Amino acid sequence: MASWRRLLARQRRRADLLVDSRPFVRVVVGLILVNAVVLGAETFPEVMARHGSWLRALDRAIFALFVVELSLRIFAKGRRFFGDPWSLFDAAIVAVSLVPANEAFAILRAMRVLRVLRLISAFPQLRRVLQGLLGAIPGLGAITGLLLIFLYVFAVVSAKLFGEQYPQWFGGLHVSLFTLFQIMTLEGWVEIVRTVKETHPWAWMLFIAFILLSTFTVLNLFIAVIVDTMQKTKPEERPVERQLAEIRRELAGLGRRLEAIAAREAS
Amino acid sequence: MASWRRLLARQRRRADLLVDSRPFVRVVVGLILVNAVVLGAETFPEVMARHGSWLRALDRAIFALFVVELSLRIFAKGRRFFGDPWSLFDAAIVAVSLVPANEAFAILRAMRVLRVLRLISAFPQLRRVLQGLLGAIPGLGAITGLLLIFLYVFAVVSAKLFGEQYPQWFGGLHVSLFTLFQIMTLEGWVEIVRTVKETHPWAWMLFIAFILLSTFTVLNLFIAVIVDTMQKTKPEERPVERQLAEIRRELAGLGRRLEAIAAREAS
Amino acid sequence: MASWRRLLARQRRRADLLVDSRPFVRVVVGLILVNAVVLGAETFPEVMARHGSWLRALDRAIFALFVVELSLRIFAKGRRFFGDPWSLFDAAIVAVSLVPANEAFAILRAMRVLRVLRLISAFPQLRRVLQGLLGAIPGLGAITGLLLIFLYVFAVVSAKLFGEQYPQWFGGLHVSLFTLFQIMTLEGWVEIVRTVKETHPWAWMLFIAFILLSTFTVLNLFIAVIVDTMQKTKPEERPVERQLAEIRRELAGLGRRLEAIAAREAS
Amino acid sequence: MASWRRLLARQRRRADLLVDSRPFVRVVVGLILVNAVVLGAETFPEVMARHGSWLRALDRAIFALFVVELSLRIFAKGRRFFGDPWSLFDAAIVAVSLVPANEAFAILRAMRVLRVLRLISAFPQLRRVLQGLLGAIPGLGAITGLLLIFLYVFAVVSAKLFGEQYPQWFGGLHVSLFTLFQIMTLEGWVEIVRTVKETHPWAWMLFIAFILLSTFTVLNLFIAVIVDTMQKTKPEERPVERQLAEIRRELAGLGRRLEAIAAREAS
Repeated sequence: MASWRRLLARQRRRADLLVDSRPFVRVVVGLILVNAVVLGAETFPEVMARHGSWLRALDRAIFALFVVELSLRIFAKGRRFFGDPWSLFDAAIVAVSLVPANEAFAILRAMRVLRVLRLISAFPQLRRVLQGLLGAIPGLGAITGLLLIFLYVFAVVSAKLFGEQYPQWFGGLHVSLFTLFQIMTLEGWVEIVRTVKETHPWAWMLFIAFILLSTFTVLNLFIAVIVDTMQKTKPEERPVERQLAEIRRELAGLGRRLEAIAAREAS
Repeated sequence: MASWRRLLARQRRRADLLVDSRPFVRVVVGLILVNAVVLGAETFPEVMARHGSWLRALDRAIFALFVVELSLRIFAKGRRFFGDPWSLFDAAIVAVSLVPANEAFAILRAMRVLRVLRLISAFPQLRRVLQGLLGAIPGLGAITGLLLIFLYVFAVVSAKLFGEQYPQWFGGLHVSLFTLFQIMTLEGWVEIVRTVKETHPWAWMLFIAFILLSTFTVLNLFIAVIVDTMQKTKPEERPVERQLAEIRRELAGLGRRLEAIAAREAS
Repeated sequence: MASWRRLLARQRRRADLLVDSRPFVRVVVGLILVNAVVLGAETFPEVMARHGSWLRALDRAIFALFVVELSLRIFAKGRRFFGDPWSLFDAAIVAVSLVPANEAFAILRAMRVLRVLRLISAFPQLRRVLQGLLGAIPGLGAITGLLLIFLYVFAVVSAKLFGEQYPQWFGGLHVSLFTLFQIMTLEGWVEIVRTVKETHPWAWMLFIAFILLSTFTVLNLFIAVIVDTMQKTKPEERPVERQLAEIRRELAGLGRRLEAIAAREAS
Repeated sequence: MASWRRLLARQRRRADLLVDSRPFVRVVVGLILVNAVVLGAETFPEVMARHGSWLRALDRAIFALFVVELSLRIFAKGRRFFGDPWSLFDAAIVAVSLVPANEAFAILRAMRVLRVLRLISAFPQLRRVLQGLLGAIPGLGAITGLLLIFLYVFAVVSAKLFGEQYPQWFGGLHVSLFTLFQIMTLEGWVEIVRTVKETHPWAWMLFIAFILLSTFTVLNLFIAVIVDTMQKTKPEERPVERQLAEIRRELAGLGRRLEAIAAREAS
């Protein structure tokens, strides 16, 4: 019995080494890339008509290999697997394909392409960049909140004022929110304002106020990200202060020694 | 009479504690959120047709609660209420709904949604961000002035040159200003220039000069905000200078002591 | 004869004081603003039909006052007037209106609005901002040159390849340059590329390469302005270095004194 | 035989001096500019109809001069010519025109305009700016990779979901990629989303998620360039640290001297 356990532990260690070895990672990355190409090829109707059956088979085979790879990693890492967010990310992406998807669940079937995102977890640089992007978000909470409040207020106001006459743009809160998001991206805002201006001559004030306000807020959102990124990439300034503090400590030591010399001389 | 005053003062203190207590603030924030949802729901014609009457009643009830809340805060804070800009902001927003608004005053009715802005005054983070945004504006005065002068000059010139033939774009100063603002946002500028170019072949020079000039000025406006924000978020540099000054003071002290020792020895 | 000269010199000094006095500057700014309003009012056909004659008279009267003001300043400042670029700027703007402009010279008549630009020379803050904007340009020379070379190359290539089939976009170098500037602003680029793609399936590569290249170059132009502005607004860093240099000089002084003490003791 | 070699070596040295002399460089730049004008003139059908024959002759003559110039530079520099990337750049650009191009190879003929790019290699400032632009690219690898992964995933998903109904926008991976690039530039994105929304009411979520994600990633790409450029243009900070280190070394020296004095006194 004990030998059985020892065998298992040994297998585990070997699996752990295998799973983290460069050739293994390279094969997995290769599989992800092949899968990406297969999923891309499936978007061409003419390709699907001719090679559809074996493309689907290849996709299912790669999926099976992913399941094997994940099982191996769970066996090798044990609990640590579930403590690593990137491993859970991989598991979640593969799990999506386990949901039985018939023709009605077209969205779930399309979700299979999320497996391409495994490329991110496979490359440390990409992982770091994505973590950097996500890490910048919390600091943006307050400005985003402000922007959402502005959006909501302008959406309700414009829905109440222009909703009846221009239901395609302002008929209901969700339509109005979409239109204001459109105006915020400055795409086709002129057509909307010129049309609304014909029935509500003062409407341009509302929209130009919204454009200036939202642009200025988005600008400050950008600046917050820039300042945040710059402060993170500037760790060389603190040593200066630390060095200055040490210089002052050394000066105080010199002062004490001089005082001691002076006192001894005076005596 | 004195006991009456004492009672009032005690009530005031209790009201003050209540008004600043976390549960009270949470209830007010809850009311603002419910109000926001009600005002949002009112933008859907089908919802209004079915539930319009009690939605309006709910809105009026929340408004009454806001009046009660503000009265309580005025009672609790006394003069301090009118010295705090955010309290005045809250009072002004609620006061807007007191104006009798019939169907003709659709704009005033739509103004009720400004109450959602009370969320900003309820959360310190949002308040700080908004103050940051507003604080950046004074430093932009001169660049904004320059931009407005450029806009005005180009608006008058284009109105004089193209106003007769293209009244929809340049018929009068206000129309011309709107069109130039549109060109500044780069939305649909090509259609205007390509059309005007047919009758005034040199017109593209004017508009491309305007695009380059206004884009460059707006870019400098952005940079002014960036530089301003960065200087505000960099308070760690002054301590270095302060520390350096103190190091020099300590060095001067050491020098004086050495001189004293040298003088004593010489004697 | 000498007394005549002395009288002239005294008048000159008085004129110099008057010309730089606050009330005088205010009156001139007032005249510029009134002139701006008059020129703005002239853009409305209905206003011109009714009040056109006296608006034109007012414009001519203000112009006369500007000529008087400039003559006074030339008399007061003498040669210094022609050494000050802002004074020459004012003189040039006023001189434009001296050119006889009949109906055929509509552009010259429209140039009268340039007088509004005198507001910039009247306010030191605006002057400083404009000088800042102009001061940033020399540093952009090389990037702008690169951008113009890219524009020229792509304009010639696209004119040669697509000029025959799409003369409205690429028929000749100037048309092609305009279209590429349009694509650079991302306004309506999709319509052009989707149309050209039908006859030249590989054309999208050329245009997307151009978009990426020009956007990246413009981004670097922006960054050059940002870095330039930031370095100009950071004069507090040199004092640190200067202070450090002085600290080292003081330390060297202390070392010499200590050596002197040690030498004296040793003797 | 030896004298023959010596003669060659002397000619080489003379050619080297000639090739790097200012008049020679100026003549080459002049030729490039004339060539640019000729190639620009060739884009006008009316100009080609009248002066086509001698313009083509001029182009061929300049090309011949470029070949002579490059041969001279190869003779003068020897191996060094092939070690200098800018020389190879010049050679490659000129070599393009050696490919026999008949009417069918219109693209190759249009490539002749690449010779204008020789202006970059002729001016050190332009060369430095271009190297700066290219030097910023490696640091962007990871973010660009992330952006391409996002683009690919969204392209496959949208092709699978909307490809059948909207083949003009999503019929196949390449079409879908182009459309998503279009949406990323915010040009005409509203028309696409409003149309797709009619058959897939939830489609706006996908596209707005894509807009927010891609805009945020591009923003971080920009910030990476800004931070990178700023760190390169800030070489003045290290001297501070170096000076601080030297100050501490000097302080340690002072301390040792004081100790020596104290030790001598104690003895």
